[in-house]
Amino acid sequence: MTKKRILITNDDGIHAPGIRYLIDIMKPYGDVYVMAPNKPQSGSGHAITFTEPLRIHNHKEETLYHEYSCNGTPVDCVKLAEHIVLKGLPDLVVSGINHGSNASINVIYSGTMAAVIEGNIDGVPSIGFSLDTHREDIDFEPYRKSIERIVEHVLTESLPRGVCLNVNIPFVPKVKGMRVCRQAHASWIQGFDSREDPRGGYYHWLTGKFNLLDKGIDTDIEAIANGYVSIVPIQLDFTAHKSIEGLKGLNVGNE
Amino acid sequence: MTKKRILITNDDGIHAPGIRYLIDIMKPYGDVYVMAPNKPQSGSGHAITFTEPLRIHNHKEETLYHEYSCNGTPVDCVKLAEHIVLKGLPDLVVSGINHGSNASINVIYSGTMAAVIEGNIDGVPSIGFSLDTHREDIDFEPYRKSIERIVEHVLTESLPRGVCLNVNIPFVPKVKGMRVCRQAHASWIQGFDSREDPRGGYYHWLTGKFNLLDKGIDTDIEAIANGYVSIVPIQLDFTAHKSIEGLKGLNVGNE
Repeated sequence: MTKKRILITNDDGIHAPGIRYLIDIMKPYGDVYVMAPNKPQSGSGHAITFTEPLRIHNHKEETLYHEYSCNGTPVDCVKLAEHIVLKGLPDLVVSGINHGSNASINVIYSGTMAAVIEGNIDGVPSIGFSLDTHREDIDFEPYRKSIERIVEHVLTESLPRGVCLNVNIPFVPKVKGMRVCRQAHASWIQGFDSREDPRGGYYHWLTGKFNLLDKGIDTDIEAIANGYVSIVPIQLDFTAHKSIEGLKGLNVGNE
Repeated sequence: MTKKRILITNDDGIHAPGIRYLIDIMKPYGDVYVMAPNKPQSGSGHAITFTEPLRIHNHKEETLYHEYSCNGTPVDCVKLAEHIVLKGLPDLVVSGINHGSNASINVIYSGTMAAVIEGNIDGVPSIGFSLDTHREDIDFEPYRKSIERIVEHVLTESLPRGVCLNVNIPFVPKVKGMRVCRQAHASWIQGFDSREDPRGGYYHWLTGKFNLLDKGIDTDIEAIANGYVSIVPIQLDFTAHKSIEGLKGLNVGNE
């Protein structure tokens, strides 16, 4: 029986502790291919690169383990791995472990989750893992079992067509369990830290404060706040189906 | 009565013919603020910039017309305009006119639509306009009336909370009318054009072929193919609600 081919990527870059730990977890599950950005790409969203050429750097080529980085975005990583390295689709895409939460509205800004969504577009079961802290000097070991459980579930049961998973892990010494839930409604209250440079020009650093707009108890934010790993099934249909009827006034012909 | 404040952006950059035409259309509707990327940012998805500082260039400051560009992405443009220039929310965000279709799955890669979604996250009625051709030497005049109709509808009726519009215009001499529809299910069959540089290194250009996976007659792709402007209401909840029940096996406690 052929070993499953597993593609691993992230948006924090090939050297981030989170992806190094995820590689360690995933090795027993199959033939592991890593293709990650050669530098941090947090907040890259679903960006793709077509105005500049992409280059691949080969780090390690061993039996059942293959590691590459590239100058592209996380979504580019998935495309490059599938088309240049694997020459076909992997059996599973896993992305992360992201340094920082991708729960709620963060899913749309996240390069880690964009890679997961890209795997999903190609019909590959795909999972994104994120840990709710930006600290890098942490022990991921308390979260290993939750990650293994979810990976094993997806490898044995697969996922519904067009659905991928956004998994967020609370930064607690011991998680209480896992909860399948929905994306909380939220926004970021943005701000800018504006400064004057030595030549008198102004520049602006993006800052922000998370703004929860949802009191539901069935959300990812609520699960994490209570010490549970949140698992949100994510789909690719952005259509607001319930709004189609109300907009019918725009259905006009020119005849 | 205060004039409405209208924010205009795009992903093709401040000099693109599409945004110049859109500015011309929008001027009669209010106090127009333009904040667009200083270079093309096609395919930038929902990327944001927080590892580099952002800078704003002031082009024009007239009564009822204010034009700026910046070194950020389309989503950065919305944030900068709201926080640095407007110091508050606009009454309407319009993005485009994009050079190329953003129908179907393209919505996820598009910087033009990311700006629209960002406006929506902030609770501002937001519309993205795209024309189904990459040619730049075109006359947008045949499409003016459709754009005006949609803008007027949104200015008078507004949009449901959390819903924005993805409008795609067929590249035909005369559109047949407009259709409110859903996002077609599709993917891109990706490829790479791989080349060897003069120093013997390899580089890869991203290419692709649109792959329609949807035979529905109620989709944006179908509307455009039949000469109609497609209007898809877009929402921000990525949750695959119907899949939550089927994944309940993952709901486990550690007790």
